[in-house]
Amino acid sequence: MSDFLLPRFAQLDPYVPGEQPQDRQYVKLNTNESPFPPSPRVMDALSREAIARLNLYPDPLAKTLRETIALEYAVSPEQVFVSNGSDDVLGFAFMAYADQTHGVTIPEVSYGFYQVYAKRYQIQPTVVPLNEDFTLPVEKFLRQNQLVAFANPNAPTSLAMPLGDVERIIAENPRGVVLVDEAYVDYGGETSIPLLAKYPNLLIVRTFSKSRSLAGGRLGYALASPALIEDLDRMKNTFNPYSVNSLTMVAGIEAMRDHAYFDACVASTCKQRAVSAAELRSLGFRVLDSATNFLFAAAPGMDGLRYYQKLKERGVLVRYLNQPTLRQFVRITVGSEAQMRALTDATRDILKEETV
Amino acid sequence: MSDFLLPRFAQLDPYVPGEQPQDRQYVKLNTNESPFPPSPRVMDALSREAIARLNLYPDPLAKTLRETIALEYAVSPEQVFVSNGSDDVLGFAFMAYADQTHGVTIPEVSYGFYQVYAKRYQIQPTVVPLNEDFTLPVEKFLRQNQLVAFANPNAPTSLAMPLGDVERIIAENPRGVVLVDEAYVDYGGETSIPLLAKYPNLLIVRTFSKSRSLAGGRLGYALASPALIEDLDRMKNTFNPYSVNSLTMVAGIEAMRDHAYFDACVASTCKQRAVSAAELRSLGFRVLDSATNFLFAAAPGMDGLRYYQKLKERGVLVRYLNQPTLRQFVRITVGSEAQMRALTDATRDILKEETV
Repeated sequence: MSDFLLPRFAQLDPYVPGEQPQDRQYVKLNTNESPFPPSPRVMDALSREAIARLNLYPDPLAKTLRETIALEYAVSPEQVFVSNGSDDVLGFAFMAYADQTHGVTIPEVSYGFYQVYAKRYQIQPTVVPLNEDFTLPVEKFLRQNQLVAFANPNAPTSLAMPLGDVERIIAENPRGVVLVDEAYVDYGGETSIPLLAKYPNLLIVRTFSKSRSLAGGRLGYALASPALIEDLDRMKNTFNPYSVNSLTMVAGIEAMRDHAYFDACVASTCKQRAVSAAELRSLGFRVLDSATNFLFAAAPGMDGLRYYQKLKERGVLVRYLNQPTLRQFVRITVGSEAQMRALTDATRDILKEETV
Repeated sequence: MSDFLLPRFAQLDPYVPGEQPQDRQYVKLNTNESPFPPSPRVMDALSREAIARLNLYPDPLAKTLRETIALEYAVSPEQVFVSNGSDDVLGFAFMAYADQTHGVTIPEVSYGFYQVYAKRYQIQPTVVPLNEDFTLPVEKFLRQNQLVAFANPNAPTSLAMPLGDVERIIAENPRGVVLVDEAYVDYGGETSIPLLAKYPNLLIVRTFSKSRSLAGGRLGYALASPALIEDLDRMKNTFNPYSVNSLTMVAGIEAMRDHAYFDACVASTCKQRAVSAAELRSLGFRVLDSATNFLFAAAPGMDGLRYYQKLKERGVLVRYLNQPTLRQFVRITVGSEAQMRALTDATRDILKEETV
């Protein structure tokens, strides 16, 4: 850090990117990626001809991509915002709607970046602890009348909130934007999209990184009223108007259009999730009911850190989150059948060792 | 714009992206893109295998890309920052080093985004008018001891500042970061890279969008002391850690490694620039001495707006900048030989019409 950096940024906790150890090949179940490659339509569209045009700037309005997303979700293109991954979208939203005098209400346990944005923009967050069963206490999110942000389904708990509860939060915060982060919704959550017609304060944030198999492409989007979308466009266009690169734009269009491939990938992950959850439960694990592409699981007779470490020794990476209420748990991405077999094999081995 | 947007952002002038009219095919000489496709090595590296891995997140540390850039410019990887286009890099730098109480000194005529960032972050800019010959008045940039930012070569004037003058500005602002935007340096400017070893306050910002033929990929970088790079990493990692997508990372590495192709493209553009400048001058134009991939030119007997409009009627797009001191001029990207012939043919036609 230099002496030139503004003091308020000097106090930020630098983000530590998810581990990518290079000492051996790991079965990577720690970043909630899809185990499937992008749609064959994406592969075909990223042709030599498309690559040869990289000397030209992308369309800053992302017209075709926005139209494609709008068509898919039966909204108008003016209700669609796109940017460089959903982190970009979340960052612009926090900046647009909260600051030192306009707060934000967030769950204590959710996507960790909400708290990072709060610190970065000097926002005083109202941090709401989860219920003991890891659900969100809906009452605590009502009548905030400031930015309210949560993920549905939530991470790392994997639990979905019923749409009726989401609607109560939106309806009872008419003077605040309610940001619903639907990164994982395709795997079993109820989307808030039907509520868009009714609530001008609803902001839905989504990503191509999970169910669309494009984490490497960096593409996130928002669905909302045209006025909120205009706000986000203003934030983007005063920072980085060409934030989505040409190839990712093409990839996103094709990934969105290939319904059959999308359905097959999501169905496969949901099926594997059921198999792995049942297997872990049969081994004595507590596994929450996941509506996502990951499992939030507590090993029998061992805290999360120990289980995480013993898996890592055996070449399997999962995510341990060092938060007081989550100590017993790890977050396990639902990978391919082979990856999940590696996980359960390693787990059986660990449990055997523990009981010796 | 919604009622929820923070009032300070409501006052921002929204950026208007460069025109991309769809009514006909244009000879596009208005956005300073390279007329050449990316290096064949880029084409080969963006293989089906690379595309198939898009389901995985990119390396947030961009290790190989940073090492490749470091090797090219004989600095250490800790002196390299990369992000999603140089706008991203500039945006992080303005946010890191200036705010309501820490100002910025910028030229009145330069890359328009500096003023946009100033407004966005509520920075009071010290705006320095250019000299009558469009050069920067070096004296006015000394002893600012706050963020100082300028492009060298400058846009849209196309003029390069001698390295000695750049060094004076850096040396006489020891308590402020001096940001030198070298977007166009490969076409004839003197780089400040040799000064990095001497000045911890020097921040050089660069792009792959021009001489590396990757405007569509969105890749910008900064070279500076490790402490300044750590600041920028902190800004990025509290906003969007995965800001460079996987394919662009691969493209950037190969574009940087292909010296022969890079040299050939730059040489070709410089040669074409000389031909086109001479031709326009022979037609009575005033053309500044360009050290960039564009010409800043004033047509005889006609202001810039009129010349721009008459070119557009003939299917040639150039950039007219609606600023009081630039009224006589347009900015013309140096395109391919065929594109430049289209420009000069259209220009002859316009001049003939004017004199009838």
